[in-house]
Amino acid sequence: MPFAPRLKRLYAAMEAAGLDAILLNPGPSLPYLTDLHFHISERPVVACFSPGHTPTIVVPELELLKLSKAPYEIEGYAYSERPESWQTAFTAAFEHLGPGSRVGVEDRCLRVLELRFIQAALGHDNLTSAEEAIATLRMHKDGAELDLMQEAVHMAENALSDTLPHVKPGVTEREINARLIAAMLRHGSGGELPFQPIIAFGANSANPHAVPTEYAARVGDLILFDWGANNKGYFSDLTRTFALGEPSDTLRTIYETVRAANEAGCAKGAPGVKASAVDHAARGVIERAGYGDKFVHRTGHGLGLEVHEEPYIRGDNDQLLAEGMTYTVEPGIYLAGQGGVRIEDDMVITKDGCRSLSTYDRSLTILPA
Amino acid sequence: MPFAPRLKRLYAAMEAAGLDAILLNPGPSLPYLTDLHFHISERPVVACFSPGHTPTIVVPELELLKLSKAPYEIEGYAYSERPESWQTAFTAAFEHLGPGSRVGVEDRCLRVLELRFIQAALGHDNLTSAEEAIATLRMHKDGAELDLMQEAVHMAENALSDTLPHVKPGVTEREINARLIAAMLRHGSGGELPFQPIIAFGANSANPHAVPTEYAARVGDLILFDWGANNKGYFSDLTRTFALGEPSDTLRTIYETVRAANEAGCAKGAPGVKASAVDHAARGVIERAGYGDKFVHRTGHGLGLEVHEEPYIRGDNDQLLAEGMTYTVEPGIYLAGQGGVRIEDDMVITKDGCRSLSTYDRSLTILPA
Repeated sequence: MPFAPRLKRLYAAMEAAGLDAILLNPGPSLPYLTDLHFHISERPVVACFSPGHTPTIVVPELELLKLSKAPYEIEGYAYSERPESWQTAFTAAFEHLGPGSRVGVEDRCLRVLELRFIQAALGHDNLTSAEEAIATLRMHKDGAELDLMQEAVHMAENALSDTLPHVKPGVTEREINARLIAAMLRHGSGGELPFQPIIAFGANSANPHAVPTEYAARVGDLILFDWGANNKGYFSDLTRTFALGEPSDTLRTIYETVRAANEAGCAKGAPGVKASAVDHAARGVIERAGYGDKFVHRTGHGLGLEVHEEPYIRGDNDQLLAEGMTYTVEPGIYLAGQGGVRIEDDMVITKDGCRSLSTYDRSLTILPA
Repeated sequence: MPFAPRLKRLYAAMEAAGLDAILLNPGPSLPYLTDLHFHISERPVVACFSPGHTPTIVVPELELLKLSKAPYEIEGYAYSERPESWQTAFTAAFEHLGPGSRVGVEDRCLRVLELRFIQAALGHDNLTSAEEAIATLRMHKDGAELDLMQEAVHMAENALSDTLPHVKPGVTEREINARLIAAMLRHGSGGELPFQPIIAFGANSANPHAVPTEYAARVGDLILFDWGANNKGYFSDLTRTFALGEPSDTLRTIYETVRAANEAGCAKGAPGVKASAVDHAARGVIERAGYGDKFVHRTGHGLGLEVHEEPYIRGDNDQLLAEGMTYTVEPGIYLAGQGGVRIEDDMVITKDGCRSLSTYDRSLTILPA
C-alpha cells in the first residue's frame, strides 16, 4: 500500500483546509495512513500528523513494538499502566504544536477520553473537524484498495453460492444466516463483518432492516440476502433476492422493476456525474412503474473501510463522482405483508465510466421448492 | 428488567457523586437504563438523566417511535435530516439544566460529535466523568441479568459440544472457528459476538491473543478455544483447552497446574473478599509450580454488557467483591514453541460465596486422533 503518498495527500488536504495538524485515534483512518492497527479501548492511542514534523503517536508501552512495522518513521510516546503517567506522554508527543495551532480531529471517532489529554497538552480546546479533509482522501481508492474490495466481493459471492443449496421449505432465516457467516469465514473474511447480514424470507423481506428470525421458509416466499465480507478491513456489501418456488405475479413484477432500476443506477456512474444522478436514474425506473412510494431509502452509499461513507447516493447530493470512488447501488421495493426485493451491487468509478465489482447473477432465480 | 429501580439507583449514585445530570450516548449503559437500543452513527443520540425531571433524549426523527416502548416516560426531542436543525433539539432537551449544573458523561463513549452539541446547549464545557458512578451500578447484576448471562454461557457451551467432534488431525483453526461461530448463532447468540473467538492449535496456543489461521491440527497438539456468546447484549466468555491425541508430559503438567489454579481462583470469591485475593489464589498455584513467569496476564475481568468491565481481577486491585458481581477466572501457562493452556470460567458472587455459571468439564480431555 502506498502509505507515504497517502501522507503527502493528507498534508495537501490539510493545507487546503487550513489545518496545522490532524490528530487521529483508532478507527479506519489511522491504519489507512499508517498501516498500524489498534483497537479502541480504555487505553487512549492518538497519532499526530503535522507537515514539517515527523508524525508522533501516543501508545501504551505494551504496544510500542508495533511502531517498528510502520511504513515510515513515526515517533512513539509510550505510557505505563499508571493513568497518572499518561498526560506526560501526550504533552511530549504534541509539544511541537504551538499554542495558536489549528488542529483537526475526527468528530465521529475522537472520544472525551482522548480529548481531555489533547486539550491539556495543547493548552487550548479549539479543535476543528478534519472529517471533510480525510473523506476527500479516503473517497478516492487506489488500485491496491480496489483489489482488496474486489476480493471482499468474491468472498461474499462464493459464500452465497455455498449457502444457497440449503435454502429449502422449512429452513429458518437464522439457520441460513449461520451457514452464510460460516461460509464467509471459510472464504477468508475477517470475523468482524461490515454488518450483521439481513436474511429475510417472505413478508419479512419487506422490512429493509430485518434481522434473522426463526421464521421458516415457505413455497412462494421471496428470499433476501443482504451481506458482505471483510477483507483486511475493506468491505463488500451486496444484496440478492430469490424466489422459493413460483412467486406471485406481483412479486415477479416488483422483481423485474428493481432489476431494471439496479441496471439503470449501475450504468449511470462516470467521472463528473452527480451522485444524485445515480439516485435519480434508479428511482426514476421505480417511480415510472408506480412503486415510487415503496422505495423508502436512498439508492446507495460509499463503501470502503467503512460500510457507510462518502459519496452518499442520495437525490439531494450533488457531489461529483470521480475516478476511484466506490459506492453501492441498491434500489428496492417493499410491499408490506407480501415481501420486498432489493438488488445491490458495488460500483467503482473508472476513467471514463464505471464498473461493478460484483457479477453475481441478477436475473430472477427460482430456487427448487 | 427492573428499569425504573435502575433509574432510582442511578439518581442515588449521582447524588453520591455530586452530579446534577448524566448524559449518555449509545453504548451499553443507555439500554441498561432505558431498554432503548440505538446504534452509534453519524446521527447523534444523547439522553439526559436528572433527578426531579423526566428523562429527555435527542434522537433523529426516524427513531422517535422507539420511545413509545420505553419502560418509563422519556421526553423525545427529534431532529430532521438537516444537520442545521440538530442544535435546536439539543438545546431544548437540556434546557432544564442550569448554567452552573454539574454534568457527568462517559468519557469512553461520548464523542466530539455529541460533545459540540452538548456544550453549546449547556453554555459551558465543564463536563466531568460519570464512569465510576455508572460502573458502581452496572457491576451489581440482578436476577434477570444473571439469567441472561447464564443462558449466554449455555449457548457457548452447546456450541462447543457441537464443534468438538470436528476437531481432527488436518482440520484448520479457521475451519473450526467458522463452525463454532455458526453453532453459536444456531444456539441463539446474537451476531455481534463479545469478541472474535481465539481458536489456537499447537504452538499457536502459546499466544494469548492468537487469531485463527490456516494451521492444520496435528497429533499431540493442544487445542485451545476462547469464545463467548451474546444473549440480548449480555456476554459469556469461556476458555477450554483439549489435547488432540496424547500430549507430552510437559503439556500434561501445565494442564493440571492451570486446572488447579482455575479451581483455586474460582473457589476464592465471596462478598467482602478483595479482587486481588482471587488473582493471588490462582497465581499462587502457578507460581508454586514454577511457572509464574509463564502466566503473563491478569487472572480475569468483570463481564456483563461489556466483555471487559469492573471488577478487574488483578493483583493490585483491592476492590471488595459483592453479591451480584460477575467476572472471569482465566489463569494460563504459555510455553513458546510448545503450546499454552488456559481454563476460563464465568463466576458470580452470591450471598455467602460464589458460583460458576459455566460447568463444561475442566478435566484433561484427549480428543481421538
